[in-house]
This record gives sequence, C-alpha cells and structure tokens, in this order.
Amino acid sequence: MNTPHQHIIKSYDEELKRLTGEIVKMGELAVAQIEAAIDVVERRDERAAQRVVDNDDAIDVLEQEISQDVVRLFALRAPIASDLRNVLAALRIAADIERIGDYAANVAKRSIPLSRVAPIPVAGGLANLAELAADQLRNVLKAYHDQDAEAAYEVWKADAELDEAYTMVFRALLTYMMEDPRNITPCTHLLFMAKNIERIGDHATNIAENVWFVVHGEPLVAPRAKRDTTSNPEP
Amino acid sequence: MNTPHQHIIKSYDEELKRLTGEIVKMGELAVAQIEAAIDVVERRDERAAQRVVDNDDAIDVLEQEISQDVVRLFALRAPIASDLRNVLAALRIAADIERIGDYAANVAKRSIPLSRVAPIPVAGGLANLAELAADQLRNVLKAYHDQDAEAAYEVWKADAELDEAYTMVFRALLTYMMEDPRNITPCTHLLFMAKNIERIGDHATNIAENVWFVVHGEPLVAPRAKRDTTSNPEP
Repeated sequence: MNTPHQHIIKSYDEELKRLTGEIVKMGELAVAQIEAAIDVVERRDERAAQRVVDNDDAIDVLEQEISQDVVRLFALRAPIASDLRNVLAALRIAADIERIGDYAANVAKRSIPLSRVAPIPVAGGLANLAELAADQLRNVLKAYHDQDAEAAYEVWKADAELDEAYTMVFRALLTYMMEDPRNITPCTHLLFMAKNIERIGDHATNIAENVWFVVHGEPLVAPRAKRDTTSNPEP
Repeated sequence: MNTPHQHIIKSYDEELKRLTGEIVKMGELAVAQIEAAIDVVERRDERAAQRVVDNDDAIDVLEQEISQDVVRLFALRAPIASDLRNVLAALRIAADIERIGDYAANVAKRSIPLSRVAPIPVAGGLANLAELAADQLRNVLKAYHDQDAEAAYEVWKADAELDEAYTMVFRALLTYMMEDPRNITPCTHLLFMAKNIERIGDHATNIAENVWFVVHGEPLVAPRAKRDTTSNPEP
C-alpha cells in the first residue's frame, strides 16, 4: 500500500467519521436522484431525464472511493470487533446506495419513451411511491449518521407502507392495460419503474438492518421475513 | 473474538481456500435453485414451487456463515494487498449469489399463481433464458474457483446474449397482452420473472468483474458500460 497519501495518518476515529460522512454524502446524492427521476417523469422532459441517467456516474465514483478508503483502512488499521463491524457495514451500505442510484437512473431512463406517448394517469401514484422511498432513504441515512438503532427500526417497519403503495400502483396499471391495449407498452415501463422504487425501499431496509447490527452487534431479525406483496395480484 | 474455535488456527492459504470453497458451494446451490425454479414453472407444480421458495433459506444461511468467516479471517489475519482483495471480493461475490438466490425464489413464487390460469406459450423462451443464466453462473463460478480472469471475461461478454434473449421474451409477452386482456395479469408475472432472470445474468457479470479484479488488481472496465436493452421497446 505505497500511496502518496500514506504519510497522512489520521486518528482512527477521524477515519471512521470520514467514512461515515462519505456514505451519508453518497446517500444524499441518491435521494436527490430519486427526486430528480420522479420530477422528470412528471415533467416529461427527455433532456433532464438523460441528465439524471448521466449523474448516476457520480454515485458510482463515490462508491469506488469508499471501497478504496475501506481497503486503506484495513491495511493501515486492521480493525477488529466493533470497528470491523462498522467498516464492513459501511461497505454493505455503500453497495446498497449504489444499487439505489441504479434504480433511480433506470426510472429516469424509462421516462424517455413514456414522454413520447399519451400520459397514463398513474404518475401521481408513482410520485407518491417515490416520495415514500426518498423519505425512507433520508431517514435511514440520518439513523446511520446518528447511530440510532431505534430510528433504523422505524424505517425497517415503515417499508410495509411502501409495499402497500406499490401494490396500489401495480393494480391501477393492470386496469389501464386491460382498458386499452395501446396502454400496454407504456404501462410495462411504469410497472418496472414502480418495481424499481419498491426495490429502493428494500435497500433502505437493508441499510436499516446494517445500522441495527452496527449498534447492537446482532441481527435485527434472522432472517428477515420477506415480503413480496405482488406475487399473487388479483386486480 | 473469543469463539470456541479460536484455538483452531489453520494456515492462511487453507482458510482462503475454505472461503473459496464455501462460495462455490453457495453458488452451486443458486444454480440448482435457478434450474428448479424454471422446472416448476414448466411443470406448473405449486408444491414444488413452494419448496424452491423455502430452499432459499439455505443460501441465506450460507451467506451469513461466509460473512462470519470473513470477520474471523480479518480479526485473526488482518489480510493486506492481494489477500485483502481476495477477501473483499469473496464478500461481494457472496452478496451477489445471495441476490441470485432471491431472484430464483421469486421466479418460483410467481409460478404459483401462473399454474392456476391457462398457460402462456412463452415458457419455452423463459426456460431458454433461465438456462443461459444458469450457464453464466456455472461458468463464472468455475472461473472464480480457477482464478481464471480470461474465463471470467468470456462470461462478462456473454451477458449480451442473455440480454437479447430477454428482449425476445419481453416482446413476445407484450404481444400476448395485446391479443387478449385476460393474458395481462399472468403476463405481468412472466415479465417480472424474465426480468429476474436477466438480473441474475447481471449479477453473474458482477462476479466476473470481481474475479478479474482479484486476478489483475485492477477493474475490468471503469465504469462498466451499462446495458438496458428494454428501456425503449418497440414491439
């Protein structure tokens, strides 16, 4: 590990704090991407949508930087016990945020073909879903920053609401498809967009589980009862 | 780290080999789950589908064991340089396999409502897609076991085929939905099933990137050009 920065030896606590700060920054970018994605869906703005897709690179770059920081931290500090738990959780949380960024970018990308056809009046439901997901991510980032396991648990529980909102959007989309075959293609995009947002919520609950684990040293649930409310939809 | 096993100090190489072996075993379970999932879709067998869903727990348990092994390895060995790369890659690969298991279980779960309605004649295309995905995973596990970066690169490139096969299934499903509104609900399940299998392929390419990184110490591509062939489908 002969890097030019090797001579800058900060205190261990400072390094961990820096890592946490980077992850929160990465998470805030992802929140902004979710909100920007849903904004371009509503405005039907192709160029803005492409900008959201392009901005995902910034999140990917941050994840790579965090991975490198973690490798450096391991090499210089060889963390054990709760510090090790902290660093491994940081890696996992960064991976979750990276996936959230991908989902947000995919929502923006799918809005491009949608902006070329007649609007499906489900955008309100989708925006509501995205707002719930953005709130979940915002709240779990705060819980992570504050090392607040109880706040993380609240996020974990609130995922059920997001699942319900998803099911509502899903069923509305089915009815639009049945009403008019011309709606089918745009509605498949909207289906995947809604699913992407629901998955963002799942990643927020993963982060919540990691916060709990960091604070308490044991899993929140083992293994988590998995919800998948749309495996058997009856429209 | 006062575990009852602490006195059993194996050689470092042995421990790494054990870790690799566990990951390959976990991956083989995931391959079996993909194949079992597509088998229950074709046989329309609800009970067998439920067994596939339940079997996903075994993969989750293995991932937890691998995480614990990694934590123990860090605590006892404090790996650096290429060993550190190896161990971090192992963690990432285990996470990818865990997700693949989730996707396979979701395919099986969605087959349950499908077995109660008239079959959509796209099952052949879906089985072909799943076979491609299972092959990708099998091949990348071998590349990982053999530390063969070139073989990993072949897997990485072959993902394009899987994306093409997915696009074909996707377009076929759109036409079935347009032909008869009664097909819409079952076809949305099939859409998500096809998407899940396509995502399994993406995780196989993630694993390929990690194998490349372990062998060469630098990324395969930075950042990978992301494919998303169905963001703009024109049936």
